[in-house]
Amino acid sequence: MSQPVGQAAEVDVAMSRAVALAGRALGRTSPNPVVGCVVLDAAGRVVGEGLHEAAGGPHAEVNALRAAGESARGGTAVVTLEPCRHTGRTGPCTRALIAAGITRVVIAVPDPTAVAGGGAQELRDAGVEVLVGTGREAAAHVNRAWLHSMAHGRPFVTWKLAATLDGRTAAADGTSRWITGAQARAEVHRLRARCDAVLVGAGTLRADDPHLAARDVADVVQPVRVVLDSTAGIPLTARVLDEAAPTLVVVADGAAADHLVAAGIDVVAVPRAGAGLDLAAVLAALHERGIRSVLLEGGAHLAGSFVAADLVDEVVAHIAAALLGSGRPVLQDAGITTITEALRLTTTDVARLGDDVAITATVRRDS
Amino acid sequence: MSQPVGQAAEVDVAMSRAVALAGRALGRTSPNPVVGCVVLDAAGRVVGEGLHEAAGGPHAEVNALRAAGESARGGTAVVTLEPCRHTGRTGPCTRALIAAGITRVVIAVPDPTAVAGGGAQELRDAGVEVLVGTGREAAAHVNRAWLHSMAHGRPFVTWKLAATLDGRTAAADGTSRWITGAQARAEVHRLRARCDAVLVGAGTLRADDPHLAARDVADVVQPVRVVLDSTAGIPLTARVLDEAAPTLVVVADGAAADHLVAAGIDVVAVPRAGAGLDLAAVLAALHERGIRSVLLEGGAHLAGSFVAADLVDEVVAHIAAALLGSGRPVLQDAGITTITEALRLTTTDVARLGDDVAITATVRRDS
Repeated sequence: MSQPVGQAAEVDVAMSRAVALAGRALGRTSPNPVVGCVVLDAAGRVVGEGLHEAAGGPHAEVNALRAAGESARGGTAVVTLEPCRHTGRTGPCTRALIAAGITRVVIAVPDPTAVAGGGAQELRDAGVEVLVGTGREAAAHVNRAWLHSMAHGRPFVTWKLAATLDGRTAAADGTSRWITGAQARAEVHRLRARCDAVLVGAGTLRADDPHLAARDVADVVQPVRVVLDSTAGIPLTARVLDEAAPTLVVVADGAAADHLVAAGIDVVAVPRAGAGLDLAAVLAALHERGIRSVLLEGGAHLAGSFVAADLVDEVVAHIAAALLGSGRPVLQDAGITTITEALRLTTTDVARLGDDVAITATVRRDS
Repeated sequence: MSQPVGQAAEVDVAMSRAVALAGRALGRTSPNPVVGCVVLDAAGRVVGEGLHEAAGGPHAEVNALRAAGESARGGTAVVTLEPCRHTGRTGPCTRALIAAGITRVVIAVPDPTAVAGGGAQELRDAGVEVLVGTGREAAAHVNRAWLHSMAHGRPFVTWKLAATLDGRTAAADGTSRWITGAQARAEVHRLRARCDAVLVGAGTLRADDPHLAARDVADVVQPVRVVLDSTAGIPLTARVLDEAAPTLVVVADGAAADHLVAAGIDVVAVPRAGAGLDLAAVLAALHERGIRSVLLEGGAHLAGSFVAADLVDEVVAHIAAALLGSGRPVLQDAGITTITEALRLTTTDVARLGDDVAITATVRRDS
């Protein structure tokens, strides 16, 4: 990747900062990407920074330029995603950069979308030096849900699992409170807050009556709670139907869901597939609603269906320092019968949460 | 814990170094403990260090004093375990310390054994200042196998498991090569080298014909390969019976093992218990042979029997970034039926091995 000729170190540091700023907005910007921007003055000093805080709000570049003021003139804008050149709910960022007197723009990741893309060329046409690729890996990683959604037309799916070292989520008698400790359970709420939706199946709903909102997270934008309920059998007393966060019930085409609609519940119908719903259709319906990231918190069978349909993109595994030797397995019916078919992942992060260990890993795909 | 009045920082650093020196000898000193020693001169400078390299060889204190020479006079000996006062295969360390003119001895862990213990008192009686407890936790941890053996009359048992994120060791069709990657598999050889014995059951022997020696480890003292084979059915062609390392076959009392003995194989008989051998008797037999640490590499059922008998002390789990959703579970028949009976562990180390994660955890016991 090309590097700016001067101030390479300052630009690298600024890009790391811009990536961190972008990460702060995860779970808040959909259907938009997360974007961070740092403005350096002509001498390479940081004079402004900004992020895209929420859909409908100003873009990261505009926030950073506003903070920099006149110091931006002759300076460099370091931004995690190619600036847009379209007039959406806010003006185009390219024009704002040019108007502020920015003479160099360093971009980590090109914008893959037709409507917003082309910003780099427009900047070059205006005489601005443009460099693309600095910090690309980290910037693509923080924005992976949105980039994945743009590339595949469906949300990025993270499967969160919590199991013992031997892969059990409950003991032989069905008891499961608690497998993981308090730190891991708190981290689940932060994971929810960083996603646009949290998804479970009817089995988990019946067994656990989960609430699924993000609790004890400051300034949270609550994720949409999505329940896959092919028969529309969800009881109106289910905790997931309270006012703490929006909820969407996905039923099968033809399911008798009028009583849910009458109760003011948001319901969408998709085709059946196999024993349940067509999961690709479920994700397409979520994508249409602007959902770019889904945290799958379903049980072993639903997770197996997602794996079998190749619809899991990332796994966050909370592994408890405990052994059971029997009981409910964390994953079933994933359609894998031999070792060469195992779903292989690339570990991106390992963290200790008390005695538990959080392993984050991305599903390997050849494409 | 008491600290030396002067040179506290130097003593702490020296104790860390002594613990590291002790750790180098793991797998080489049994039936003796691992011990490290650092000698500081009167000004607090390191002038000698040593470890107990192997049973029958000089003790750590003697090696460190030899390195220090005359500089030891008026100095401090920092040692991970209380110096012995008995004349075994080597002279008593207490006398060597006094003869070298050491005026202060800092000890991490008291010696719990009657025959060697009492060294601290003997030193005090000779006018040497003695401080006990500095660095106790780390020094006890590195020597945990020996300390455990002295306290319980049986070796310390580490169960090594390798499984997918969902706790499988083989796919539904039985294929399992490979679950973990090359780094994790190499680490298993280093684990073996740090233990006195590696133990499997007849099931694993029949299924995998494992070799069990520590491969590609420099200066290795090979662990004893222990096979639990109640019926004495091991084929004479088993790889574990080659010359690469010593091997011990444990059979049930009354099993027809004459053909094994006639073939020059080391055989010991213990009582039966349940469907297999009395595991406490197995460990007692190993303890009698001077084995202080056992790496359990058996399959799910043997591990379950060890867990059920409360004979697992530590778990080293190599968790692969892979999912299977079916196939052989890593642990079975552990005798646990409800969540409150789960075997709980305290995580002591987490390490990445490529895409795999190694979790080391100690079994919690109330005692």
